[in-house]
Amino acid sequence: MFEQIFENVRGKSPLVHCITNYVTVNDCANMLLACGGSPIMADDPEDAVEITGICKGLAINIGTLNQRTIPVMLAAGKRANELRHPVVLDPVGAGASALRTDTALRLLEELKLTVIRGNISEMKTLAYGSGTTKGVDADVADRVTEDNLDGAVSFARELARRTGAVIAVTGAIDIVADKERAFCIRNGHPEMSSITGTGCQLSILTAAFVTANPEHPLEAAAAAVCAMGLCGEIAHRRMTELDGNASYRNYIIDAMYRLTPARLEKGANYEVR
Amino acid sequence: MFEQIFENVRGKSPLVHCITNYVTVNDCANMLLACGGSPIMADDPEDAVEITGICKGLAINIGTLNQRTIPVMLAAGKRANELRHPVVLDPVGAGASALRTDTALRLLEELKLTVIRGNISEMKTLAYGSGTTKGVDADVADRVTEDNLDGAVSFARELARRTGAVIAVTGAIDIVADKERAFCIRNGHPEMSSITGTGCQLSILTAAFVTANPEHPLEAAAAAVCAMGLCGEIAHRRMTELDGNASYRNYIIDAMYRLTPARLEKGANYEVR
Amino acid sequence: MFEQIFENVRGKSPLVHCITNYVTVNDCANMLLACGGSPIMADDPEDAVEITGICKGLAINIGTLNQRTIPVMLAAGKRANELRHPVVLDPVGAGASALRTDTALRLLEELKLTVIRGNISEMKTLAYGSGTTKGVDADVADRVTEDNLDGAVSFARELARRTGAVIAVTGAIDIVADKERAFCIRNGHPEMSSITGTGCQLSILTAAFVTANPEHPLEAAAAAVCAMGLCGEIAHRRMTELDGNASYRNYIIDAMYRLTPARLEKGANYEVR
Repeated sequence: MFEQIFENVRGKSPLVHCITNYVTVNDCANMLLACGGSPIMADDPEDAVEITGICKGLAINIGTLNQRTIPVMLAAGKRANELRHPVVLDPVGAGASALRTDTALRLLEELKLTVIRGNISEMKTLAYGSGTTKGVDADVADRVTEDNLDGAVSFARELARRTGAVIAVTGAIDIVADKERAFCIRNGHPEMSSITGTGCQLSILTAAFVTANPEHPLEAAAAAVCAMGLCGEIAHRRMTELDGNASYRNYIIDAMYRLTPARLEKGANYEVR
Repeated sequence: MFEQIFENVRGKSPLVHCITNYVTVNDCANMLLACGGSPIMADDPEDAVEITGICKGLAINIGTLNQRTIPVMLAAGKRANELRHPVVLDPVGAGASALRTDTALRLLEELKLTVIRGNISEMKTLAYGSGTTKGVDADVADRVTEDNLDGAVSFARELARRTGAVIAVTGAIDIVADKERAFCIRNGHPEMSSITGTGCQLSILTAAFVTANPEHPLEAAAAAVCAMGLCGEIAHRRMTELDGNASYRNYIIDAMYRLTPARLEKGANYEVR
Repeated sequence: MFEQIFENVRGKSPLVHCITNYVTVNDCANMLLACGGSPIMADDPEDAVEITGICKGLAINIGTLNQRTIPVMLAAGKRANELRHPVVLDPVGAGASALRTDTALRLLEELKLTVIRGNISEMKTLAYGSGTTKGVDADVADRVTEDNLDGAVSFARELARRTGAVIAVTGAIDIVADKERAFCIRNGHPEMSSITGTGCQLSILTAAFVTANPEHPLEAAAAAVCAMGLCGEIAHRRMTELDGNASYRNYIIDAMYRLTPARLEKGANYEVR
């Protein structure tokens, strides 16, 4: 099924409005192009709602949120909801500060979200209203392992039930769940965490996948997570002993550019619980 | 002639003030350094006009315009006009939203522009006051081909006549025109469109070229367009089967860093109409 | 000693709050990850002070300062001072405009700075209240050479005495000084100046090093400067005749990712005056 989902991305070339942080925005744009989508960024109050209207999907990332852009995120999200466009939220750093937590909760409350993609600490913050982090990374105490996977799956399903969104909790093992089913995904490589913005890129990628497959948000989000992880694996095999996180960053985007739907189908490593 | 133009860029190392979008700004800075120029970015109202004053040229890109930066673009542009510095405008997304269209038209009206560089849909929007786009990319229906090239050349010349600026319409075939002459350029590679910001980089490059060659804005802009396309060709030949748009991005900037004036002269592929 | 300092960075993985410019922010984040640290960026007034509180160190870079972010720099700096966190200032473009000069001087006056890292023109501006630049690069007339090195060392020591901060003046020869001692460092490669943001990256790196070694700010800053220069050397040896400044940028970050404490100890090229 992931083969068809990815073919839809390549075939439809979805135009995605990205309201995202300025740290990783360039990599997000190139990742979106690499998968076959098309990016546009707009965060001015007067501009953003109209740009949302010409796009097919919306990705919101609060990584460098500010007083000017928070209302824009809400307004663009409401416009996307009116148009029944998919909306993906990346609650970067929820739990790290009150503004990030409150903004993420407010977006969750006021918008109909299609997918929420974050690390486990961010997701716990959304679920319980507060949490602990290591900055924009998950708190070690929260990490999903084989030992606590059942509990994490239940947590994701319950959060999906409460929010109505597909929940994508990413880390060493990724969980992509709606209220009924959960994909447990074991693609990826630990060194992906040494690159800034692999999470941000995945959120934008997820937006492209659900935008091109609006009838199948769970499968589309799971396919995006598998695709990102698979590219992390392919890119890692390419690394020489001189390469570090900067080249790895480029190789992952390159791998997405070269990834075929058939290879995604074959390389996706998941079980459904 | 392009050889001398490029030698002037390398020799003078023009300091260019770039008011540009935050998506592609890093690549713009590295491209400017690669060609031999020197970048500085400033977009605070209090800072930008003074920074314009210490530079030799100005590039304005509206890709992530906002209420704070629009007046800065106007004020910096007026200062550059007073100083008789070249000003290059990249009307990113004109036609995609009212704010982008209106801002581009206002910049065109209030400033003396040396070069306007955009895709054909953006240029039609400037000419007719409205247009259609695919986000920041040209509408397929607008594209310049061998079949409609004569009409596109006439359009560019007429827009040059009306605005007093050199018009650089870039796409599969590039047209760089003043009211009398048009360079039709066939450098470049289709995969350049799979990288975010090749257009933005070209606009900054154009600013460096016209800044170092203020007496010859038409030829300087044409040389910049040829140089960018030629680097796209050189970089494409370097790509392996593992490389994608991220590596291609780096290779194009690398190619500009290595490009010699003699090689530009030899590799420039254009006719004058 | 540099071996132990770098081992502390790798071992403690310091979380550093970066208020930095949007031109080079992505490279700064990847450089911080490459050395073993962890970045978070926040520049909203409501968010930044709280984020400072969850971090262990703060880096302030005024490269794209604006009216919104200047008060944030001051507030975050004061919070870091209260918490006795190291604070590193990079006064990008001090001397190029009144706003940059005034802001740098105000940060110097109102904050207790651990390290100030800049080029010689920026440092002269801080010392004398005004100066000359080539944009964000040093004025050629200011450059530190073997001939004027003694004078430059005296200047750095005196500025360190007056400000209470470690002074890191970087260029062809780097000087890292407190009021008593100065490290004169001869690592690095001239082509590093053809990449945007090597100075910004070094400032963030310095913040990580002093954050992980709060008892030894002079040695930690000197180690960071040596590490950056050494990576510039290692990366340069990797370059092929097709590589330019874009690949060199990646290779330097890669080299930091691969650098071991022992190799830093061995490759650091300095004398203490």
